[in-house]
Amino acid sequence: MVSLQVTFQPSGKRLLVEPGHTVLEAAHAAGIQLRAECGGKGLCGKCKVQVSGYEGYTEEEMEFFSQNELARGFRLACQAIVDKNLTVYIPEGSLARKQRILVEGVTRKIVLAPNVKKIFLKLPEPSLEDNRTDVERLRDSVEYDIGSVSLEALNQIPVAMRDSRFEVTLVLLGNELVGCERGDTSNRCFGVAFDVGTTTVVGYLMDLNTGEQRAVKARMNPQISYGDDVISRINFAQSPENLERLRKSLQDCLMGIVTELSDAAGLRRGEVYELVVAGNACMQHLLLGISPRSLAVSPYIPVVKEALSFPSTLYGKRMYVLPMIAGFVGADTVADIIAHPLDNHLRLLIDIGTNCEVVLGTADRVLACSTAAGPAFEGTHIKYGMRAAPGAIERVEINDDVTVHTIDDEPPQGIAGSGLISVTAELLRHGIINRAGKLQPGEEFSSRMRNDSFVLDGTVAITQKDLREIQLAKGAIFAAQRILLKTYGVTVEELEEICLAGAFGNYIPKEAAKDIGLIFDLPTEKIKSIGNAAGVGATLCLLSVKEREKAQAISETVEYVELSSRKDFQQEFMDAMFFPHSNLDLFPLVRERLSRTSTYFRQESSPLATK
Amino acid sequence: MVSLQVTFQPSGKRLLVEPGHTVLEAAHAAGIQLRAECGGKGLCGKCKVQVSGYEGYTEEEMEFFSQNELARGFRLACQAIVDKNLTVYIPEGSLARKQRILVEGVTRKIVLAPNVKKIFLKLPEPSLEDNRTDVERLRDSVEYDIGSVSLEALNQIPVAMRDSRFEVTLVLLGNELVGCERGDTSNRCFGVAFDVGTTTVVGYLMDLNTGEQRAVKARMNPQISYGDDVISRINFAQSPENLERLRKSLQDCLMGIVTELSDAAGLRRGEVYELVVAGNACMQHLLLGISPRSLAVSPYIPVVKEALSFPSTLYGKRMYVLPMIAGFVGADTVADIIAHPLDNHLRLLIDIGTNCEVVLGTADRVLACSTAAGPAFEGTHIKYGMRAAPGAIERVEINDDVTVHTIDDEPPQGIAGSGLISVTAELLRHGIINRAGKLQPGEEFSSRMRNDSFVLDGTVAITQKDLREIQLAKGAIFAAQRILLKTYGVTVEELEEICLAGAFGNYIPKEAAKDIGLIFDLPTEKIKSIGNAAGVGATLCLLSVKEREKAQAISETVEYVELSSRKDFQQEFMDAMFFPHSNLDLFPLVRERLSRTSTYFRQESSPLATK
Repeated sequence: MVSLQVTFQPSGKRLLVEPGHTVLEAAHAAGIQLRAECGGKGLCGKCKVQVSGYEGYTEEEMEFFSQNELARGFRLACQAIVDKNLTVYIPEGSLARKQRILVEGVTRKIVLAPNVKKIFLKLPEPSLEDNRTDVERLRDSVEYDIGSVSLEALNQIPVAMRDSRFEVTLVLLGNELVGCERGDTSNRCFGVAFDVGTTTVVGYLMDLNTGEQRAVKARMNPQISYGDDVISRINFAQSPENLERLRKSLQDCLMGIVTELSDAAGLRRGEVYELVVAGNACMQHLLLGISPRSLAVSPYIPVVKEALSFPSTLYGKRMYVLPMIAGFVGADTVADIIAHPLDNHLRLLIDIGTNCEVVLGTADRVLACSTAAGPAFEGTHIKYGMRAAPGAIERVEINDDVTVHTIDDEPPQGIAGSGLISVTAELLRHGIINRAGKLQPGEEFSSRMRNDSFVLDGTVAITQKDLREIQLAKGAIFAAQRILLKTYGVTVEELEEICLAGAFGNYIPKEAAKDIGLIFDLPTEKIKSIGNAAGVGATLCLLSVKEREKAQAISETVEYVELSSRKDFQQEFMDAMFFPHSNLDLFPLVRERLSRTSTYFRQESSPLATK
Repeated sequence: MVSLQVTFQPSGKRLLVEPGHTVLEAAHAAGIQLRAECGGKGLCGKCKVQVSGYEGYTEEEMEFFSQNELARGFRLACQAIVDKNLTVYIPEGSLARKQRILVEGVTRKIVLAPNVKKIFLKLPEPSLEDNRTDVERLRDSVEYDIGSVSLEALNQIPVAMRDSRFEVTLVLLGNELVGCERGDTSNRCFGVAFDVGTTTVVGYLMDLNTGEQRAVKARMNPQISYGDDVISRINFAQSPENLERLRKSLQDCLMGIVTELSDAAGLRRGEVYELVVAGNACMQHLLLGISPRSLAVSPYIPVVKEALSFPSTLYGKRMYVLPMIAGFVGADTVADIIAHPLDNHLRLLIDIGTNCEVVLGTADRVLACSTAAGPAFEGTHIKYGMRAAPGAIERVEINDDVTVHTIDDEPPQGIAGSGLISVTAELLRHGIINRAGKLQPGEEFSSRMRNDSFVLDGTVAITQKDLREIQLAKGAIFAAQRILLKTYGVTVEELEEICLAGAFGNYIPKEAAKDIGLIFDLPTEKIKSIGNAAGVGATLCLLSVKEREKAQAISETVEYVELSSRKDFQQEFMDAMFFPHSNLDLFPLVRERLSRTSTYFRQESSPLATK
């Protein structure tokens, strides 16, 4: 078969591909990360490219481009087939951009008890009188019972011993001898904890002797090219070849982060001895090459939920993978709980990502559930939605005019999840939308309406359809909270704290979130952002095997509530689609504040009065 | 660098090599196994080739070739450097030939208890009410405690379950779940036991459900190209690259045998679940890529002697490697003892290979030692020596004339180990050599003398130097037996049985072996050939974990006697270099028989009368 040449501009990258591949596939092969939130199905329209001399277009492309644009060669990369040598121009907006990634989290003090130990030994040299084997010599020289000896260690032992006058440092993982190094290297002992998210992967390089964090590096999850949410990826992973593609891309990402971290901290090769991974169920399945198919269909079960500790190297490193609670309450939630252990205060923990996990409980009893918030808060399904990258609107103030605040103060390019909450709350406060979410601007804002959209700045607007997406998302998230409280048998008054975890949770404007009814109406001081709790939890598990025992206990004892089997979920969902809720009694503080600060809500026909 | 082309004839194989490599290295790279018993040092002269247009030769080559031969292009492949395009002709005699390899052994009945188990399960299908994970579902469905689950199994589980309506077969190794197959495959469960010798590798394919042997295949150990005995290989393995070369060649050999066995028995890919390996210490080190350097220098210790059971796949298969006793009393000896367990009869077990291992004892107490027999009985260091291949003389009768018997009745090409013992005994019986091993033929055989050689047939002869080699070998082997008896505190009269194990041991002519004093002078019915006992022992360990426990116990309890630290060894060795020994009282049966059957020993000046 003749290979065809594809040239990408403005980067100038070139590669040969076989005919029949899509331009999107060619871009991936060239290492160019195009946006493809729908997984390359022609549905999201994010992978726009300009192809010179290309003819023909699909029905999907007609949806996204005007005749003029089509004539100018605009195409969707996922639809355009390479059938001759092509030059492809990629607009900036079609590239998966570098995002603001949350790496910080609130951590807590623990006693160091890492799974990796290094022991320096000065061994007696062998003689005809003392002709113990090398391994016997090692076993006899440490106080502590060495179990099995890995093949890697066996390969290192004779060389290390004889090259350094029988002064060696043992590397133990649990009670397994996994390495033997020349001389005294006991002060060099590192591990990396990973928070593997659907969108981002964060790695924390830890010094296992001191517990200090030595470096943090984050990357976009490269699987984004194959679909934006877990469901797209599960669909993509149906064939063994695609499953392997997803596995490989995530492996490369993790290993790349390990290299970056090592370089940043000046480590030599091989000084990272263990990796600890916390991710949602789908990510963990994909990382291990396990088909995630069963996660996507009822009854939504994972293949495995217990902690996995591979006795041999995986991808060249020892790896511990945290246990999960259920198919959609993954190890990331376990890590959240590890980071913020439940005590005797009744606490609600909400981790909003593409999926939203909600945990409720005390040290005695814990419930957890998951709900598909959808990717609205991550920018997809929203006309001008985007991830939290420079130029994303993250806060909106509406007074006489509309003021937008963007990340890094760059010119507005779209709306981040936090911006969506902020703008919705502002629209509500001014009565530009009603409690049912309908755009109904009064005269003073009518000039900002364009078709079914409310213009925020220049070309960036929020549409009626966007508002429906937000209602669906927040409705599901709030209904999940309600069901958990009901199942637990407690009222909102008994709730002592709400913790918002995760990248998005950290940036949520708290007042606005209450105003629109995303979370319960607690006093703001009782609502805490706890940052990247999953990363903190993974780090704690790297630093101490005791924390791993806790993780296993959490995985086994947390009661999973399957919302899809709850008959009352639909009603709760419907009620929660109102802003803030159909039952305003649930939001006394919001009602009080809005009546006080909002002209609109002081009107006689205040919607606050009616249901 | 410019690559040069080397063409090998008569095979016509061609390859490109970089300048500076030897012709021997090029031949290996081309997959041609040349003899190189000395490990490519120019010492053995076995790798003769004819190189057209090649100039120059080394001093080593002058030793082996006449001026005429040198002029005709004869060279040693290990000495000739590739410095231009070359055509190399390889004489038949320089190829490592296919040998007679011993695969049979006396076995015993055991209760089947293999480490691999297969369990067929019909699982309940998951539902919202029964949403256990796949792994939980499996764990709950078997009576027995499943420990860890391998990554391979995790990858297979979801696919196998859903492709076969939740009817699957589990593969357990010990209590680890290592595989999950579609449908009921419980009647297909196989393993391969290996006897890994310095010269030959034999694989036994066993049905683990029935204990039946399904196929046997043997190959030459491909490491032979890098040296004939363990010492040459250890010398070759000094650099990591060469160690890896040796490891890889042995791995390829084992994996090739697995494929051959599977094909022979009509197995599908992946139906061999476990490999069990018994070899000498050096072979086991090399197979695992462990530097064997410490085995070759005092105090001759192995890196590891305990049994090794790798928790993950090694070379794509699970592997159990038998434990050893000491650096030169390896797992092959442990396997010998497994095959022929010591009981309450005092038994001597002798395994003659390049090294000779001797075991003495009862179930209560066992001693073992090893002595370097040298490769004489395997054909090296003997002018017309060769391995037990077709055309090798294995028995000689001298009456009025000399009659030789060869393997497969092919024309005589050289002398096998058994033939060396046979001819030595016959020379002794006729007084053609005296008890000190000196050739002193009477008139009737003087016509057979040529220089310092006694001609057996056509060009095949035995030289005075050969006889010295035999004396050294048998002297060492007999001295080892003497020292063990002395250390044990028993006399030869108390000895109840001698077992001869190993490829060579099986073909030893027993009367002749006693006549020359290779073994103690027991009645012939008390001397047994037990065949490839190492292979049998390895097979038993494949079929039952109880046998592995015995192997571990043997490894820990057998007392190793280090001959090099024994002050009396030298004297015993000197005494044992006589035929059959300096002290004839040790050989009463031999003396009686020779006096009866040999004209020479009936003479008045019989050497039997004097020391």
